[in-house]
Amino acid sequence: MPRQAGRHFLQIPGPTNVPERVLRAMDMPTMDHRGPEFALLTLEILKGLKQVFKTSADVVIYPASGTGAWEAAMVNTLSAGDKVLMFETGHFATLWQVIANDLGLDVEFVEGDWRRGVDPAEVEARLSADENHAIKAVMVVHNETSTGVTSRIGEIRKAIDKSGHPALFMVDVISSLGSIDYRHDEWGVDVTVGGSQKGLMLPPGLSFNAISTKALEASKTATLPASFWNWQPMIAANKTGYFPYTPATNLLYALRESLKMLLEEEGLGNVFARHRRHGEATRLAVRAWGLEILCLDPEEYSAALTAIMVPEGHDADHLRKVILERYNMSLGTGLAKVQGRVFRIGHLGDFNDLMLAGTLSGVEMGLAAAKIPFNKGGINAALDYLTENP
Amino acid sequence: MPRQAGRHFLQIPGPTNVPERVLRAMDMPTMDHRGPEFALLTLEILKGLKQVFKTSADVVIYPASGTGAWEAAMVNTLSAGDKVLMFETGHFATLWQVIANDLGLDVEFVEGDWRRGVDPAEVEARLSADENHAIKAVMVVHNETSTGVTSRIGEIRKAIDKSGHPALFMVDVISSLGSIDYRHDEWGVDVTVGGSQKGLMLPPGLSFNAISTKALEASKTATLPASFWNWQPMIAANKTGYFPYTPATNLLYALRESLKMLLEEEGLGNVFARHRRHGEATRLAVRAWGLEILCLDPEEYSAALTAIMVPEGHDADHLRKVILERYNMSLGTGLAKVQGRVFRIGHLGDFNDLMLAGTLSGVEMGLAAAKIPFNKGGINAALDYLTENP
Repeated sequence: MPRQAGRHFLQIPGPTNVPERVLRAMDMPTMDHRGPEFALLTLEILKGLKQVFKTSADVVIYPASGTGAWEAAMVNTLSAGDKVLMFETGHFATLWQVIANDLGLDVEFVEGDWRRGVDPAEVEARLSADENHAIKAVMVVHNETSTGVTSRIGEIRKAIDKSGHPALFMVDVISSLGSIDYRHDEWGVDVTVGGSQKGLMLPPGLSFNAISTKALEASKTATLPASFWNWQPMIAANKTGYFPYTPATNLLYALRESLKMLLEEEGLGNVFARHRRHGEATRLAVRAWGLEILCLDPEEYSAALTAIMVPEGHDADHLRKVILERYNMSLGTGLAKVQGRVFRIGHLGDFNDLMLAGTLSGVEMGLAAAKIPFNKGGINAALDYLTENP
Repeated sequence: MPRQAGRHFLQIPGPTNVPERVLRAMDMPTMDHRGPEFALLTLEILKGLKQVFKTSADVVIYPASGTGAWEAAMVNTLSAGDKVLMFETGHFATLWQVIANDLGLDVEFVEGDWRRGVDPAEVEARLSADENHAIKAVMVVHNETSTGVTSRIGEIRKAIDKSGHPALFMVDVISSLGSIDYRHDEWGVDVTVGGSQKGLMLPPGLSFNAISTKALEASKTATLPASFWNWQPMIAANKTGYFPYTPATNLLYALRESLKMLLEEEGLGNVFARHRRHGEATRLAVRAWGLEILCLDPEEYSAALTAIMVPEGHDADHLRKVILERYNMSLGTGLAKVQGRVFRIGHLGDFNDLMLAGTLSGVEMGLAAAKIPFNKGGINAALDYLTENP
């Protein structure tokens, strides 16, 4: 096959498009991670990261991808046999639960249909029923990357409070951080788990834990073994700008650059508004096509991605293949139990109106090429919305 | 103003989007231009360049932008006071004529309305009238970047032949080379002038002369002073892969990469077909908007860019400003006598369907934002054409 000209449209829901400035920031010699210049880098980054997590608490950075930070949240705070309450909101919530099982935790896994977020009333009921406080942690995925459904973290916090239950509250924000408003402190989250390759516009390879005082306290008595993931030496070394072991130096250069872009140059409020606007434009296109959005509750629509169902008898992965071959665009596959039934459009990270217009045009042409029944005009619905809501 | 997120759409008719692979190819240490590795680089590039010009004749590479190669074509072949026949097809043809005047040539400049290419019959008539063969060169711009109008070089060659006139034939292909089919040998062109920053997908800074045997012969008696531009030492040094003075080393790395992409990976035939297809899709959008294409003759439509007239009483530069500010896209301004009256969409270089869809969406939304009267649906006309003509 001849070369496909032009830029590839990487519209999976992460890893996202890395801005060229961020790529160039990485493209510098690796420095001494015990030297004085490095300490300044670390301190600057940690200050910025706290703004992104909206916390004054500690944030640690692992030279590991998000799956590692999931594990870190648990091994620092829990002991073998501890009970945790988790919710099957989608593929990633399911995978987090697998890790909990691997670590010997006793998971109460609330089944779900992958089309809704966590129900705060369900959280309250489950915790209220747990009179002996056997549940040590409630664990929720903020933005389910497999479904385009968000869970209402603030309301879940209120539900926990109403139950009067002392369980820790842990939240995965891997695909929402830097894309969808998130408030670690205000929402009383104990451990927030983030990653580098989505809203932060970096390649994969860094992940984060934001840690409340209560979680830090719990870490002192937790007995699951933790060494690489251990918060204590990390927090201690970070105080002066260093790490207990080798950090991912060049990804930290990239993080400094992306934090500058998000916090100083665009502003988090603008970043979130941009994502909401592109989510709404995408959903208007989907409705105009006559296709169904996987997420059922408008209050839970994700601003980072949209998962779209193909009509019965059609294969979403065939559509994705046609779009990749003809239009040089990668869209997200349906994972696990929605494989072949949905495809996902990522509209997060370093993204703008004309990239969205190209993306939606590619889907519209792809639907025709893959002979999936649909109505034309999705692109127009999106452009009208973008025009009327500058 | 806050940072504009996402990729900038650089849709001026050149410099064009430089592929990241080409940027990375340049991003290497500058090498010894007298060393053995450099000779291999030069010889490989010259071989590829000849394929792009469709010539077996000599091609020289200047470490200078296109304006320099315009001058080179003349100082190598002509003498002060020589008469040359030139045609006002647009701004760049006019600028080439200014240089001819600067050099002391006697220019017969055929006026034009900027909406048509050179008329072969006019060439034949002018040459036939020149019984004493005072005209030493006929100079034509193949693709007028200011107007989106091409001139039919093959037909002009036939007109020259019919007149039996011995004038040299010089053609500027700066904005057509690597985008629109061009045949130096078959069309009997004596000097072809090219540049790096358009279809070749490079930054500006390199330019070319392809030189027929007849032109090389003329250079032996031409008396305009030439040193930097002098073909003879360049051709002599090139034989072994070197240059008579310092070449633009890192741009040559880039050129090697882009030639590989155009010739080996995509194929010139595919490259030209891609440009024609995007030109047609763009014109369908323009017609659906109810706007007028500057180029009057469909046979002369440019596959590299389209110049579009705004309705009377509206300012094309205001539209461009609105589009830049709202949609992060650069479009070409109207130059000189069409300033404010036209804007230009570049659809050349490293470009694909979804980049075009984003581009046309930006124009469609921009027309609305700038309150220029138009009909919606340009984007649909383009997408329908692209879908039906994969």
